[in-house]
Amino acid sequence: MLIIAERINASRKSISQAISSKDRAFIQNEAINQDRAGADYIDVNAGTFVGEEAEKLKWIIEAVQEVSEKPLCIDSPDPAVIKAMVPLVDRTPMINSITLEPERMEGILPIVAEHKTKVIALCQSEAAMADTADDKLRLAEQLVKQVTDAEVPVDNLYIDPLVYPLATNTRSAAATLNAIEKIMKEFPGVHTTCGLTNVSHGLPNRKLINRTFLISAIVRGLDSAILDPTDRQLYGTLKAALAVAGRDDFCMGYITAFREGRLE
Amino acid sequence: MLIIAERINASRKSISQAISSKDRAFIQNEAINQDRAGADYIDVNAGTFVGEEAEKLKWIIEAVQEVSEKPLCIDSPDPAVIKAMVPLVDRTPMINSITLEPERMEGILPIVAEHKTKVIALCQSEAAMADTADDKLRLAEQLVKQVTDAEVPVDNLYIDPLVYPLATNTRSAAATLNAIEKIMKEFPGVHTTCGLTNVSHGLPNRKLINRTFLISAIVRGLDSAILDPTDRQLYGTLKAALAVAGRDDFCMGYITAFREGRLE
Repeated sequence: MLIIAERINASRKSISQAISSKDRAFIQNEAINQDRAGADYIDVNAGTFVGEEAEKLKWIIEAVQEVSEKPLCIDSPDPAVIKAMVPLVDRTPMINSITLEPERMEGILPIVAEHKTKVIALCQSEAAMADTADDKLRLAEQLVKQVTDAEVPVDNLYIDPLVYPLATNTRSAAATLNAIEKIMKEFPGVHTTCGLTNVSHGLPNRKLINRTFLISAIVRGLDSAILDPTDRQLYGTLKAALAVAGRDDFCMGYITAFREGRLE
Repeated sequence: MLIIAERINASRKSISQAISSKDRAFIQNEAINQDRAGADYIDVNAGTFVGEEAEKLKWIIEAVQEVSEKPLCIDSPDPAVIKAMVPLVDRTPMINSITLEPERMEGILPIVAEHKTKVIALCQSEAAMADTADDKLRLAEQLVKQVTDAEVPVDNLYIDPLVYPLATNTRSAAATLNAIEKIMKEFPGVHTTCGLTNVSHGLPNRKLINRTFLISAIVRGLDSAILDPTDRQLYGTLKAALAVAGRDDFCMGYITAFREGRLE
């Protein structure tokens, strides 16, 4: 289970403030905490700083790399920003993200191919929102084709089927869960990933829904997630889900998490 | 989602003591709490009282029926005990349980057919333990055949594929989850049910595993469970799972549980 740690994102107020005030220690503390909590990649995003995104992201990347040896996940829809960041990272990064939108695909995919990075690919096109499992699967098929045509191995491809708020569509999570299972079956070797927070938008007790969605997705085959590994309840849930899904030999990951006092 | 409330079971020490000391109020309090917490059926079991099971179970049934109008789930492996209890209940009960073991099947199935009760049928035979999804499915197929041959409608049949401890077999929960999905697909109209506690036997933080297993099973199609509805975290989990599975229109069940202060 590959964990992409999501906290260093300028859409979060505390991060935005730290970026604005050049509070290096704050950002570094977030990086250290996520590193220790089990991040495989640390996502870095300065997307809300329109016109200054590259400059801010460069500053974040330098700050994070001073304190963590985890590879980074460069998070921007802008090919120019991604292109400018890749030379700055010490370890092969992940790119977050491509879609089927031509500008984004044509701008970013060559960088992914050249630098042999992993890449998150969203089931999103310029057409209508894909909100059924079959629609998501069709977009995934196109993503796999375009990515492999560019000679990026499927092992570097993390397809995000996207999940929309349950509050506006009762079947939205089920559609995503079905899509995860179909994608993993249809394209052997490909990975799936997903953010968790969208699903609970507009509902009370959001974290309960997010945890429940994570478990459900892991049981259907999800092998990566974009989440906050410092959220103790969520982390315990992740470990329990891997055990129940039969993906934790002898439950050693679960038992180790217990011994480390990390099950809540 | 049909909830069979499990607390009034003589294998629990407090229940056993209440039965021994004829503490009617204690049993009645358990019945009232489970009724209010959302039980559809209240399971009643006096199985540890060998030689006195019928007498003790009769006492329990009378006590419970004084305080709750929920139907009962008569829980015994003994055809004679079940036969003696059926005339005592005010509402059509559920029977817990038949298996493919001939004595139990031949003793209990005619009672189920005659009284048009619901029945829990375990994926268990006299042969080896069924610990793969395919083995469980084969036993389910035999259960469906025998039950429908006796003219019991599948709508009255609740197949329990059984789950064994993850601590002794990493794939045990996954086998049960796969079996649930296959059974629901293969035999339209049939129901599945399951107890939750076995899966976590021998592991730390058992309730976390139990909740995770419940979510996983609901997402795979489980439409009944044998559980403790007064366990607040478990109940919140159940409501969240139904929402994520797309089985809660407009998330109204989830939102109602929140308004009642029942999401934890």
